[in-house]
Amino acid sequence: MAMTKLKSRHILGISHLSKDEIGFILDTAESLKEILDRPIKKVPPLRGKTIVNLFFEPSTRTKLSFELAAKRLSADTVGISASTSSVVKGETLIDTAKNIQAMKPDIIVIRHSMSGVPHLLAKHIDAAVINAGDGINEHPSQALLDLFSVREHFGHIEGLRVTIIGDIAHSRVAHSDIMAFKKMGADVTVCGPATMIPPFVEEYGCSLELNLKKAIKEADVVIALRIQKERQGRSLIPSGREYARVFGLTTEAVSFMKEDAIIMHPGPINRGIEMAPEVADSDRSIILDQVTNGVAVRMALFTLLLADVKEA
Amino acid sequence: MAMTKLKSRHILGISHLSKDEIGFILDTAESLKEILDRPIKKVPPLRGKTIVNLFFEPSTRTKLSFELAAKRLSADTVGISASTSSVVKGETLIDTAKNIQAMKPDIIVIRHSMSGVPHLLAKHIDAAVINAGDGINEHPSQALLDLFSVREHFGHIEGLRVTIIGDIAHSRVAHSDIMAFKKMGADVTVCGPATMIPPFVEEYGCSLELNLKKAIKEADVVIALRIQKERQGRSLIPSGREYARVFGLTTEAVSFMKEDAIIMHPGPINRGIEMAPEVADSDRSIILDQVTNGVAVRMALFTLLLADVKEA
Amino acid sequence: MAMTKLKSRHILGISHLSKDEIGFILDTAESLKEILDRPIKKVPPLRGKTIVNLFFEPSTRTKLSFELAAKRLSADTVGISASTSSVVKGETLIDTAKNIQAMKPDIIVIRHSMSGVPHLLAKHIDAAVINAGDGINEHPSQALLDLFSVREHFGHIEGLRVTIIGDIAHSRVAHSDIMAFKKMGADVTVCGPATMIPPFVEEYGCSLELNLKKAIKEADVVIALRIQKERQGRSLIPSGREYARVFGLTTEAVSFMKEDAIIMHPGPINRGIEMAPEVADSDRSIILDQVTNGVAVRMALFTLLLADVKEA
Repeated sequence: MAMTKLKSRHILGISHLSKDEIGFILDTAESLKEILDRPIKKVPPLRGKTIVNLFFEPSTRTKLSFELAAKRLSADTVGISASTSSVVKGETLIDTAKNIQAMKPDIIVIRHSMSGVPHLLAKHIDAAVINAGDGINEHPSQALLDLFSVREHFGHIEGLRVTIIGDIAHSRVAHSDIMAFKKMGADVTVCGPATMIPPFVEEYGCSLELNLKKAIKEADVVIALRIQKERQGRSLIPSGREYARVFGLTTEAVSFMKEDAIIMHPGPINRGIEMAPEVADSDRSIILDQVTNGVAVRMALFTLLLADVKEA
Repeated sequence: MAMTKLKSRHILGISHLSKDEIGFILDTAESLKEILDRPIKKVPPLRGKTIVNLFFEPSTRTKLSFELAAKRLSADTVGISASTSSVVKGETLIDTAKNIQAMKPDIIVIRHSMSGVPHLLAKHIDAAVINAGDGINEHPSQALLDLFSVREHFGHIEGLRVTIIGDIAHSRVAHSDIMAFKKMGADVTVCGPATMIPPFVEEYGCSLELNLKKAIKEADVVIALRIQKERQGRSLIPSGREYARVFGLTTEAVSFMKEDAIIMHPGPINRGIEMAPEVADSDRSIILDQVTNGVAVRMALFTLLLADVKEA
Repeated sequence: MAMTKLKSRHILGISHLSKDEIGFILDTAESLKEILDRPIKKVPPLRGKTIVNLFFEPSTRTKLSFELAAKRLSADTVGISASTSSVVKGETLIDTAKNIQAMKPDIIVIRHSMSGVPHLLAKHIDAAVINAGDGINEHPSQALLDLFSVREHFGHIEGLRVTIIGDIAHSRVAHSDIMAFKKMGADVTVCGPATMIPPFVEEYGCSLELNLKKAIKEADVVIALRIQKERQGRSLIPSGREYARVFGLTTEAVSFMKEDAIIMHPGPINRGIEMAPEVADSDRSIILDQVTNGVAVRMALFTLLLADVKEA
């Protein structure tokens, strides 16, 4: 029997979603994506609904993607960024959340540098919460758009070999992607500097391969993560150049990949570090498709969460 | 005979509103509040109207409240914040206002750190002006939502005893609240450190009571103001802890209050200073109702001002 | 035969527009301007269209003008400002543009401190691009609104004498205005400190007159440019006071102007430098009309670009 609504009232992480729910979200996104190819890219289902974008970390593309997804469903959006928020006045996060809740929004999209903040919010408010990235924990809408992009390209996810390269330990994209691809039946290999590989890799059933060429040789999908050269003033890698030499997707490294394998990146790319410019712009790269699909996936999340709320 | 429109063309302060006008605003807000409980919280009366939020001081909740109020009436909103405005280029305030006016907005909502700025604006432009807080002068929409919240709770305002605690001298909320509750027939007592009590208290017909327990003992409504520990680098109180010990609404202090008395705060709360966390979250506290009512009251102001403009 | 759409797919500069196209834009703006005098200043032609305002330089009035123009045509707008953008994360400008493009906006309005950026964008994306000011190159919508304001005032542009005063060399407004007025058949004279007169003035067929009174004596239109006292820490003029004494439109200087000549300024005005406060506020000044007309001209650009795209 086809699913007609999500069991979850919030989108906090891939860890909270079942395989069926993920499939349902991807199917919904697929049916919504064609709206983005129309001359008038706007439909009425969320007219009169209010979506608050509460971003405590700077963001362009994710925020813009959520905002456009909302507007194309005719929802109203309001953005609150940390620098202008009451948080500077010393209010606690829960007070901020309860205050926003008291103004009766329908969905709060939150990004925060601390892991677990969206979960905390969800416990205290009635609105649906979407985690748009929390610390080093999860970034579920990114993983969903990655799944969508892979499924769109190959027609299926099950049985594919996915390799994720970079700072696996500190990447919320990696965490969500690993769980998402495993849940949907793909094999996942991770690759990166030893200092950036977390201890839990084997618990998730991932393979570990420290050699880049070996890691990408059999892969159908290669996801390069964005590298941050420092975190809290501490250098994580000797240099961008050194990282690029060992883990960068150079033209030479990519020549070892299977002919029909694709390359993905959550953006923004450090050209010349995670991958060569020619690789980013090559036919293998579906990076810009990911961006377009991000809007469709977020439209699906909004639609499903508010359908859910309505019937609850 | 029932009032059908405001006499005022702007909302500059409680001092400019008659008792009848205030009652008319509260009645209008009451009829609009039920919209906030609908699944679709949006109605069409201000479709095609433009509301400019011109905030020269940082604000989350007030700005968000005005923005949501506007959107729920189907108005278009544009926000201008000081940091991105031409003011950094040295333009005078009146030039900024006239330029915005030349783009033909219907309402300008303004917050400014200098008292009197909204009044100055109102003299130079055709759009209706709403004062969203000017220096230490007035914050009329806050006072109106406070009145609304009290009337909603008790069914009336006349005859109630209201105690306001904190920095009465430098609080625009206090100024507007004192005038608002006095106009509507309540008794107002103020309480706070002697350095924070202004000389005009008796002119307004308020009682002064420096002892917290005596001040709240007979009150029906206790409004705790937000404390700012410093103003322009000068310390106003010895310490937050010291203030909390003498003027904070602790569980013990609150035990002296009448059983059915309520506690209010304009937010954001400094938990543990103006009041104990347990007090803020207790049944006496209607702080989050104030936030919800703020949206309804601002919807009323927008509706009434634009109705007025149309007929003028 | 009347033009029915622009040949240009973008608005990159006056240098790219033919005299006929400019006339067509002005006629369209004229027919749209009356919307701004209606009680409901909103019409439906761009419903469902998305306009992204991508501002890499601070701006109040230009951004607000584009935003209001979009909203009055029922388009959705999203604003991205440099400080919150991925640019801080080191992404290249073209990557930022391609990412925004992947979210399928209809028009991107861009302001950037580097000349040529809008042209670069236009090469890489499908959306229509409007240059809202690029470095010291062009500011075409400003020149169009200047033309519109002059034509509205005098009924024609051809044969008028236009004098532009100020930092001609570093002003994108001056560059666009010179080309715009020349194309439409006006005579253009430039005037300013010798260090601020570019070598190309004669190539454009402008006259040069270093003496202010001589420069404005026969003019029908006097455009004073905004003076920036420094650029990149280097002083361009001895002082604002010195500039005002020699090139400022004082009451005395203005008394030499023809009786029916008008004064314009792109704003924001440095009162007392480019012109005396009494001159800015005098009957000769059509500065605030320029601001109103800016909205009408930008509505015309949006309408014409999207009409064009639809048929392409």
